This record gives sequence, C-alpha cells and structure tokens, in this order.
Amino acid sequence: MKRRSFRAARTSGPAEPLWIYGIHAVKAALGNPRRASRRCVLTENAAANIGASLLKNVMAEITDPERISRLLPHGSVHQGAALACDPLPRLDLDDILSMPGRKIVLILDQISDPQNVGAILRSAAAFDAAAVVVQDRHAPSESGTLAKAASGALDLVPYVTVVNIARTLEQLGRAGFWRLALGSDAGRPLGEAIPSGDVALVLGSEGAGLRHLVRARCDGAASIPIGERMPSLNVSSAAAIALYECRRGPCIMRGP
Amino acid sequence: MKRRSFRAARTSGPAEPLWIYGIHAVKAALGNPRRASRRCVLTENAAANIGASLLKNVMAEITDPERISRLLPHGSVHQGAALACDPLPRLDLDDILSMPGRKIVLILDQISDPQNVGAILRSAAAFDAAAVVVQDRHAPSESGTLAKAASGALDLVPYVTVVNIARTLEQLGRAGFWRLALGSDAGRPLGEAIPSGDVALVLGSEGAGLRHLVRARCDGAASIPIGERMPSLNVSSAAAIALYECRRGPCIMRGP
Repeated sequence: MKRRSFRAARTSGPAEPLWIYGIHAVKAALGNPRRASRRCVLTENAAANIGASLLKNVMAEITDPERISRLLPHGSVHQGAALACDPLPRLDLDDILSMPGRKIVLILDQISDPQNVGAILRSAAAFDAAAVVVQDRHAPSESGTLAKAASGALDLVPYVTVVNIARTLEQLGRAGFWRLALGSDAGRPLGEAIPSGDVALVLGSEGAGLRHLVRARCDGAASIPIGERMPSLNVSSAAAIALYECRRGPCIMRGP
Repeated sequence: MKRRSFRAARTSGPAEPLWIYGIHAVKAALGNPRRASRRCVLTENAAANIGASLLKNVMAEITDPERISRLLPHGSVHQGAALACDPLPRLDLDDILSMPGRKIVLILDQISDPQNVGAILRSAAAFDAAAVVVQDRHAPSESGTLAKAASGALDLVPYVTVVNIARTLEQLGRAGFWRLALGSDAGRPLGEAIPSGDVALVLGSEGAGLRHLVRARCDGAASIPIGERMPSLNVSSAAAIALYECRRGPCIMRGP
C-alpha cells in the first residue's frame, strides 16, 4: 500500500484561527480536504455563489457585508465571504519529490511581500507547478492577505517552508533538478535556458536579488530580456513569465 | 519644424495635489520634465538615495517617517519619500501613433484595480511598450497607489485615457495595428498569434472579460495555455507574459 506521508498538524500552530476571505479563496479552502474549516460567515449572494455542496460541512452563518468587514483587518476586500480555519498541515519537500511526472518547483529567497507571494502561488497553480518553497522566518506566513492574493491557489499548490534554502537546493540537485537562478542582468536569455526535465526556478527579492550562498547552489542563470527604462520586473511578473516558458517547452528562435 | 502636440494642463484637474510616494515612484516623477512637482517630504536616507540633482528643482523638506505617514492614506508604504505634484498633462492617442518604430500598445477594458494597472504599467515600461490605454471613468485615475504599484513607470510610459475603447480600436486598425484580444479560453496559443508589426494587446477584467463590442473590434484572439486547476491568470501576469512574447518575436515550436 502506498504510504501518503503528509505530516499531521503543526506542532506550534497559532491559537487564533486564520481568517481567509474572498470568493475564490474561501471556495478553494472549503474544497480542500486537508484544510480544517471552523466557521463560514457570508452574505446570501456569496452563499449562492459558493454553493450548498461546499458549505454543507462547515458551520455557515448568513449576514451582511459590514459585519464581515468587522471580523477582518481594515480594508480587506472580502466579496461577502470569510472563513475561519486552521493553517494547513505542513508539507515536506520529500512529499513533492515523490510526485510523478515532470516537476517545476519555485524557490523564493527572502521574498516577504504577501501580495507578491500570493500572486506567485496563483501563477504556480495555473501553470501546474509542483510546489512553491519559501524559507521559514523570511517569507509571509499563511494569512488572509496571502490567500486572497493567491485567489484560491494557497489550497491548490503545496506551499513548503524550509529552514535553509541552500540545503534545499543541494537536495533538489541530488534529486536531478536543474537549478536555474533568475535575474534581469545575468545568464542566458530565459527562452534558451530551460531544460526538458525537472526544474527549480530560483527567485530573489527585487531589491537584494539572490543571496550569494543561494546563487552558488544553482546550475545556471537566466535573464528575462527587458529594455533600459526600468531596472527590473516585478518578481511575480518574472515568475509568471518563467512558468510560462517552462510550460511552452524549448523553441527555436527565428530571424533577428 | 516638427510640432510636439502634447496637450497643456488638464482643464479640470483636482484642486488637491496628488501625493506620490515610494523611492522609485518619487525618483521617476522628479525626473519627468512633464511633471510639475510642488513639494517633496523625505527622510535623510531617502534624500541621499534620490540624490541632490533630482531634488534641486523642488521644495524639499527633511523629516521623520512618521510625519510622512501622516500625509498619506493609512498604510501607505512610502519608504521615506513623498512628493506633492500635479497630475500629468493628458496625452492623445495621436501623440503615440506618430512615434517612430514598432509599437506595442496595451488596451485595458474596464480594469479598475490600481494595483493591477500599476503592475501593468511597470511591465509596459520594462518591455518598451508605447502606451497603456484605458477608458475614462472605468479605470483608476492617477494616484499614489497607482504610481507606487507602477514603481516609477507612470512617469515613463504614456497612460492614455480615452472616452470609448471600441472607437479607439477602430482608430488603431486604420493606423495598421493588429488588434489581439487576450483571454484564457479562446483563439490561438499566444506564442503563435503575434505578428511582427504594430500590435494592440487588448485585455479585459478578470471577472467579466472583454465586452462584446470591444472583442468585435479585434482582428484575432490569443490565449495563454494554462492547466485546469485555476480558471485564469491574474491580469497583470497575463499582460507581462504577452509583452514578453511581443518582445521575443515569433518562434517555431519544437517537439510534440
């Protein structure tokens, strides 16, 4: 019998429940068998949109938008739906490496903005990436902001927290991954740099870029060719372009 | 003598000055000869970062981060720099059409979120797009949020407001542009859909997509191939991928 080694619950989860909000994020959380939901607070319209089959296993309460707003941080765009739930059980990298098929993994080195990481999760889900890997204490924890920016993808793509990114890259190298450092100023053009096997796309923060000890564990570097007016792309735009390139496969350039 | 037909000031500009904040956004605004700056409020560190040559033509005042925060909407990430200035003089589409060289123009149909539009402006600047065109009353106006998300690009890429998107597409068609509607579920794969001449990339809002009367003015449609887990990409990720494809030029697919 194949053993599914998903770890049990966090050993030190927060006492406060996590509030996830927004139609897509709440739908995905309710549809995720690994997510323990406690209580859903939503408008009549949102309940109709989400549907009875997703709501049947959670304590659901119909109310007005203003009352939902009062449960959430100021300014949260909740679209009439909020869900109190537990953070997801943690996943190990081993759980990812044992998946079948070609695997694309994103490694985020010190990217701390939940809007950017959420947007990257969304693109990772859209382009069928196997996981998004971040470093403990230098990445946003699971939050309503992260889940909303991910538009449901937090419950679809494994979000793996590791202690040490450099050691994780060594582990991925031993598992046969091609480790590609992405930057705007180094290496081959992205379109010529992606091999056909398993790939780890390594992205750093917009200000500092990749740390030296992380860059040193990569097999190669690739850049996205941009003009001279801007110094760099937004990191979530760069991730989307890199995932798109991984999915389209190698191509032969034509003409100048 | 070649006439530069940049319009003078707005006829009905807001009485309140516009506050632009964040290092990149303030730098770009100060460096834009078309931008009238009134007063810059910044920390000593930010002043050193921005540099004396950009600050010499504006009334600059050194202060602490808390005082800057009080001038701005709650939660604005100002990085120690804020600039009170006038909105940019409006540009007409004719100003864009008379530019030399191949032109890529983005047409945004009812995309209202300033974070998304700002991120699109940033990618447009990075990939040397000629303009971002939006519809009056269905697009974010110039604001600190838009400028911050654009990371300086609001002062680099023409942000053109038109009354009617469908008529603008007719005008672009007469000027020889290939008008390409972008969606996640229709048309040819993006990589095979971009011609070598002038292109107008037409994007709709994530919920509603393109309006019928806008779609009807396009010459073709293209989709970005994604998996089945997510219904769509974020619109600014889709725009970044489309701009990347326009810049890389046509390619021949290899393999299955």
